[in-house]
Formats: sequence, structure tokens, C-alpha cells
Amino acid sequence: MNQFDFNVTLSNVNNLPGLNTLGLTMARVDIAANGLVPPHSHPRASEVTILLEGSLLVGFVDTSNKLYTQRLRPGDSFVFPKGLIHFLYNTGISSPALAVSGLSSQNPGAQVSSVASFASHPGMPDDVLRKGFKMNGQDVARIRRNLGG
Amino acid sequence: MNQFDFNVTLSNVNNLPGLNTLGLTMARVDIAANGLVPPHSHPRASEVTILLEGSLLVGFVDTSNKLYTQRLRPGDSFVFPKGLIHFLYNTGISSPALAVSGLSSQNPGAQVSSVASFASHPGMPDDVLRKGFKMNGQDVARIRRNLGG
Amino acid sequence: MNQFDFNVTLSNVNNLPGLNTLGLTMARVDIAANGLVPPHSHPRASEVTILLEGSLLVGFVDTSNKLYTQRLRPGDSFVFPKGLIHFLYNTGISSPALAVSGLSSQNPGAQVSSVASFASHPGMPDDVLRKGFKMNGQDVARIRRNLGG
Amino acid sequence: MNQFDFNVTLSNVNNLPGLNTLGLTMARVDIAANGLVPPHSHPRASEVTILLEGSLLVGFVDTSNKLYTQRLRPGDSFVFPKGLIHFLYNTGISSPALAVSGLSSQNPGAQVSSVASFASHPGMPDDVLRKGFKMNGQDVARIRRNLGG
Amino acid sequence: MNQFDFNVTLSNVNNLPGLNTLGLTMARVDIAANGLVPPHSHPRASEVTILLEGSLLVGFVDTSNKLYTQRLRPGDSFVFPKGLIHFLYNTGISSPALAVSGLSSQNPGAQVSSVASFASHPGMPDDVLRKGFKMNGQDVARIRRNLGG
Amino acid sequence: MNQFDFNVTLSNVNNLPGLNTLGLTMARVDIAANGLVPPHSHPRASEVTILLEGSLLVGFVDTSNKLYTQRLRPGDSFVFPKGLIHFLYNTGISSPALAVSGLSSQNPGAQVSSVASFASHPGMPDDVLRKGFKMNGQDVARIRRNLGG
Repeated sequence: MNQFDFNVTLSNVNNLPGLNTLGLTMARVDIAANGLVPPHSHPRASEVTILLEGSLLVGFVDTSNKLYTQRLRPGDSFVFPKGLIHFLYNTGISSPALAVSGLSSQNPGAQVSSVASFASHPGMPDDVLRKGFKMNGQDVARIRRNLGG
Repeated sequence: MNQFDFNVTLSNVNNLPGLNTLGLTMARVDIAANGLVPPHSHPRASEVTILLEGSLLVGFVDTSNKLYTQRLRPGDSFVFPKGLIHFLYNTGISSPALAVSGLSSQNPGAQVSSVASFASHPGMPDDVLRKGFKMNGQDVARIRRNLGG
Repeated sequence: MNQFDFNVTLSNVNNLPGLNTLGLTMARVDIAANGLVPPHSHPRASEVTILLEGSLLVGFVDTSNKLYTQRLRPGDSFVFPKGLIHFLYNTGISSPALAVSGLSSQNPGAQVSSVASFASHPGMPDDVLRKGFKMNGQDVARIRRNLGG
Repeated sequence: MNQFDFNVTLSNVNNLPGLNTLGLTMARVDIAANGLVPPHSHPRASEVTILLEGSLLVGFVDTSNKLYTQRLRPGDSFVFPKGLIHFLYNTGISSPALAVSGLSSQNPGAQVSSVASFASHPGMPDDVLRKGFKMNGQDVARIRRNLGG
Repeated sequence: MNQFDFNVTLSNVNNLPGLNTLGLTMARVDIAANGLVPPHSHPRASEVTILLEGSLLVGFVDTSNKLYTQRLRPGDSFVFPKGLIHFLYNTGISSPALAVSGLSSQNPGAQVSSVASFASHPGMPDDVLRKGFKMNGQDVARIRRNLGG
Repeated sequence: MNQFDFNVTLSNVNNLPGLNTLGLTMARVDIAANGLVPPHSHPRASEVTILLEGSLLVGFVDTSNKLYTQRLRPGDSFVFPKGLIHFLYNTGISSPALAVSGLSSQNPGAQVSSVASFASHPGMPDDVLRKGFKMNGQDVARIRRNLGG
């Protein structure tokens, strides 16, 4: 489990070479109790998730800045359109969640909004983050530190 | 469960409208003990399958007529390239199998080789089946009947 | 002419390198009197056929298992959608037929339903064929033998 | 036969609705003795041509301004890449030629270089043609007239 | 000029209907002195920018979390790959900047990382933002307020 | 400036390697007073042009042979659909024009109608040009010479 308490196991072209040119990646997603797959996007793929165990609050923001959310129970599905920021939050206090996702690309990629902004290598200029997130320099420094930037 | 002892639950554009234009369908596949998803193809999609419970013998035939097979245990994945005949056979005598598949199309379609050939509506001409499968007219009639044609 | 009494001459990227990346293959199809291009599919291409000489009964099965057929005379065209099982049958007792087809891929591939099921290398497991085609083991063995499996 | 002594019969989505979304058009091309399919391009398709009867001199110009030509005999094929200017010339003094072409689009379109430049509706400004073709105003007027502009 | 001191004028399918199906959008980008196009992504398009006037610091983060930056002078170009977070910062103290961008979609969309996370409608759950950005509830509330959420 | 009094500066994959696979090229187009980008087509791209300085008469011919023209002032945009013949004419007697174009391909290519027809290497056969442009052999020879063929 990583710093956000989730783990992703990919079946992609690296470990399943037959996927080459087929435009598909599968992912097994394990989220600990109270764990979060934080707001992120896949620049090259849409995603369909089926929840198999546990319960999740999932959501995405579209380009008119509207948030769509849904609570999933086992057997429920949800769609995250290509390139849009989305999250999966295990609201269960004690139960882990297990989901399987299909992504519409051999190489979907993932970019966590907080990490890409505050913990890239090298880091984004302070001015860009201060102005972009409307915060002061101390905020920027603290969030960078917390996210490992 | 159908006549081949399997059941498919689709998350596609019909029950999950957000999938429209995203090029993805998900399928939960339940196969009874000794059940078979018989040789079939998806004319508009490749498929990745992750086995979650049970054990499966899976395979596909490529266009040079070579058969590729593999035995799957829980956690294993397998790929069926677009349009090629493939099958999933639950070799377990008493345990059902549970798999999840991602398909690379909003509308993958499926065509079971035996059913499309011997039980289409209306039926294919007898001559086409006799010559195509190198069997006599009694064989054709019997297989039609068994498959519900 | 092959075991089904037809012959296909391809203009594809192997003998016409300029076709590389253009997404097209052309095929000249000669079918002897009473010959059959047996039920088959092209996993990566749709096909348009123009009949130039003779007469043909052609047809395909869609994914709702409906059969569409038409009798072609010289000058007539017919379409076989991508990945669906189709056939071309020369109903002429004594005249050969000549058709030209365009296929929407540089590498359309072809899979004859009977041959891929009963004569792949190695062969599909007996159980898969018995259950998939609802026939007994003797039927399977005889059809395998007839098709050269 | 048109003013250039050729005739094209299309199997496209207008007369063969099944072609919708399949990305293919077929064309039967009849060229009278000494007839010419004049320099033209298909803005939305590549083309493969099979010559069935007669003999043709065919060619296209690529974007580095190189001309590629070939003499075709019955059974020969040639490729015209998408959007490039090409021609088919029946060098036979007395025999018509018959070819079949496949085009990689449901709606390939065609634009004859001379007609689009000198006989569009309304006509291109004289200055554009004089400067573009390095000719004087009398030349422009005469060619317009001859091409029906 | 908006809250970040830039302005975008689009030539897209809404004001230039001929762009329909052509897969292109053009944008004129004016950035005030010291203005910022804040970290954002286009979920459906790559972007090429040519700087015409002024000077810019531009950059993007890839999916391995590496930041690529460049200082642009008039005549320089830069590429922002599809779906990745990028920014354009006018480092000029007193001069505005003028750039023109081409985007590889009829409907590229844009999602500002800070605004989509902290000022969507309705807002993302506090827990998701606290955990995702590793900040406390007061930080979340203040940033929301500053960004107009 | 070339023989037609214009100059194109490309930002393409050759000088901006990051454009690889992104499907975009940008072009800065400078046209001298009274200069002409002569009738030409891009076989692999649509184009959007924004005029920044000067005034232009632009137009294209569609596949039904209709000419669409427009006068552009700074800030105006125009679209040239993929593969269709189009031109940009600086009607200003003394002012140069500056435009920026986006093209929907990494490798759009360009083919000037007059040059490709009359000055290819090697040249098109005389008969093809005489018949195709409805002119006599002396016309063909003179135009070839003027265009550098």
C-alpha cells in the first residue's frame, strides 16, 4: 500500500505482451479501509470500474467544472471519461475494497493532481503554484513537503 | 445460466450511458463447474480477462490456424485478440469460476461459431453447411436440432 | 483450387509494398462451379464484393444471429461487415464465378469457422468441441479427419 | 462516357447502405480506347486498382514532386496514396480498359486538378490562376472555356 | 482578463462551423504582464504553441512526474502532450505576451488543476481534498474560498 | 520568398521532436504584397488559418466543384478541409500579410496543383496534360517551362 493506502496491479503490455496494439489495460485496485485513490487523471484512456468487494464513493469533474459522484456497492460500475480528474474513496471504516478497471489504452498513464503540481522533479516554480492555487509561499512549501516533493 | 452453463453480466452503454463514445465494455463472467464459454469471437473488440475465482482453460486460434491455450489461476490474465475465435472452459469439477473482462469497444458484439453456423435465423443453406463442415445432411440436421436451430 | 473449390489472389502489402499504412487489401476471388467460400470471418476488415462473372449466393450472420443473404448477378455488390461469419456459394452447376473484393485493412486475416474449430494446430480439446457444437466424440473425430485436422 | 472518355460506377453508401461506417467504397472504372482519367485526387481515401481488361499507364505525384508510373496488364495492381494527384491513361488505340478500385473511405470524394482550378463555380479569380499557373489571361480564359468553366 | 490575468480567444466549431469533424481548434492566447495560464490539462487534445510577442516560461509534467520547462522568445514553439498538466507564465514585469496555439481536437476541453479540485460544483468532499493534497481542513476551506469554490 | 512570393516556417516533428505522434503541425506563413500561396492541397491534413497582419483573400474548392472564398482581416480565421485545393492571396498592394496555421497531422504534406501537374520529376506524359487540361502541346511546353518543369 502506498501513502494514500491503495494498491494497483496492472495487466498491461509490460507483463502481458499479447496486449500490444490492442488498446486495453486491466487494473486490479485494492483500497484499504478509509483509503483514497486521490484526484488523478489518465491522459490517454477512459476507465470503467466494477466494484467487487466493499463500498466506494467515486466521482469525476468534467470540463465545465461539474462534479459527478456515486456510491458503489459490489456489482456496480462507474465510468471515468478520458483525461478528466477523478477519485475513488473507500468510505468503509474497517473493510478494504476490491475493484477491477478496464482502461481504453495500451499505455493509459496516470497523473495525480496534487503530486504532479507539488512534487514533480524538478519542482514547479513557486510563483506558478502560488498564483495557480491562490495560496502563499508557506502553504506551497508545506504541501510540497507533505507530498514528498 | 444458459445452455452452455455460463452467464455474462455486461456494463455497457445500454445500462451505463456514460460509456457512450468511450470505446469500452466490461463484463462479469460466471461459469458453472464444467461449464464452457464455447468457441466464439467479438467482431469489434479485443478482450482482456482477469480470473478472480476458480480455474479456467482458455484459448484462441489465430489466422494461421494456430491454437494458443493457457491454464489460469486466480489473479492471472489472458488476452483474446479482436475478431479471433476463443473459448473459456471451467475444468473444475465442482467449483464455479468468476472472471472479469474488458473489451475494447462500446459495442463489441459476440458470435458463437456453432450457433451462428447451425442455428441462425433463417438457417444457412444445407449445402453451405455440408460443404463447409465436410459432413453429411443428417449430421447437419442433428447439430441444428441440438443447438436450437 | 483448394479443398472447397475456390482460389483467392491477394493484392496486399506483401506483393504491393505501396499499400503499407493505407488500410486496404484487394482480392480476386475465383470460385469453381458449385464451389464454396465456406463460412469464415475477417477479424480486422470489412469487405465489399463486386461480382464480375457467374452467379453467387452470398450471406452473413450478424451478432443477433440473423442471416442476411442475396443472389448476385454480374455487376452486383454486397457487403460483409467486419468480423462477421459470411460465405459465397457458386450455385452455378457448370460456370465458374469471378468476383473482386476490397477489404478495409492492410492485414485483414481470415478464419474459416469449421477449420479454426476442428483443424487448428494443436487441436482444440475434445470437450470444448463436444460441448460447443453439441455433438458426440465420434462426430468430433470424423469432422476433424474430414477437414484435415 | 464523359468529356474525358471514362465512366465510373460506384458501390458506395448511397446505393449500398450496408457500407455505412465500414470505411470502404468500390468503383468499376471503364475507360474508352485512348481515354483518360485525368490528374485528380481523392481527399479522403487511398485507392487500390486491379486492371481486369485492356492496358493502362497509371501514375501519381508525391509531395516531393516525384512522379511514379507503371504500365498495367490484366491482373496487375497499383496503389494511389491518399490525397495525391494521379491519373489512369488507356494507351490502347482501339481497346477499352476495365478496372476495379477499392477506396479506403465511405466518402472518398474526387477532385480533378484542371476542373477544380479552371472550372469551379464560381470561378477562381483570374489573378490566382495567372500567378498560380504562370500563364497569361488569354490562356486562362481559353482553358476555362475548354473545360466548361 | 480573468482572475489569472490571461484571455483565450478560440476559433472552434462553435464560431467556425467548417471545423466540424476536422479535429482542430485554434486559440489566441493573451497573457498580461506577470499573468499565468495556471497548471491545467486538455483531456482530448495535444497543443502546439507559437509565441509571437513577449516572453514566456512554459512547462508540463509527464506521467513519470518529471517537469519539462522552456523559456520562449518570439518565434519559438513548444508542445504540450495530450492530457498532461502544463502552464504558461509571463515572466515579463511589464510586457504582455501573445501566443497562438493549435489543438488536435474539435473539442479539446480544459481543466485547471486547482479549480477542478477546489472549486467544482458541487465541491469535492473535504476528506478527499485533505487526504489527496495532504493538508488540513482549514487549508482546504481557505483555498476553496480563494479560488471561488 | 519563393517564386510565388510567400514563405512558410514550419514547427513540425523535424524541428520540434515532441510533436511525434501528436498529430499536429504549426506553420507561420508570410506572404509578400501581391503574393500568392497558389492552389494546393495537403493530402494528410485539414488546416485552420488565423490572419494576424495584413489582408487576405482565401478560398477552397470542394468535391462538388464549388468555390468558397472569404476576405480575412487581422483576427479572422478560415478552414481548409483535408485534401481540398485552396489558395491564400494577399490582395494588399504594398503590405505583407502574416498568418499562423494549424494542420491536423504530424506530416501534412503539400502539393501545388500547377507544379505537381506541369513540373513533376520526371514530367507527366504530354498526352495526359493535353487531354487533362484541354490544351495543345505548345501550351503544355510553355507552362512547363514557366513553372520550372
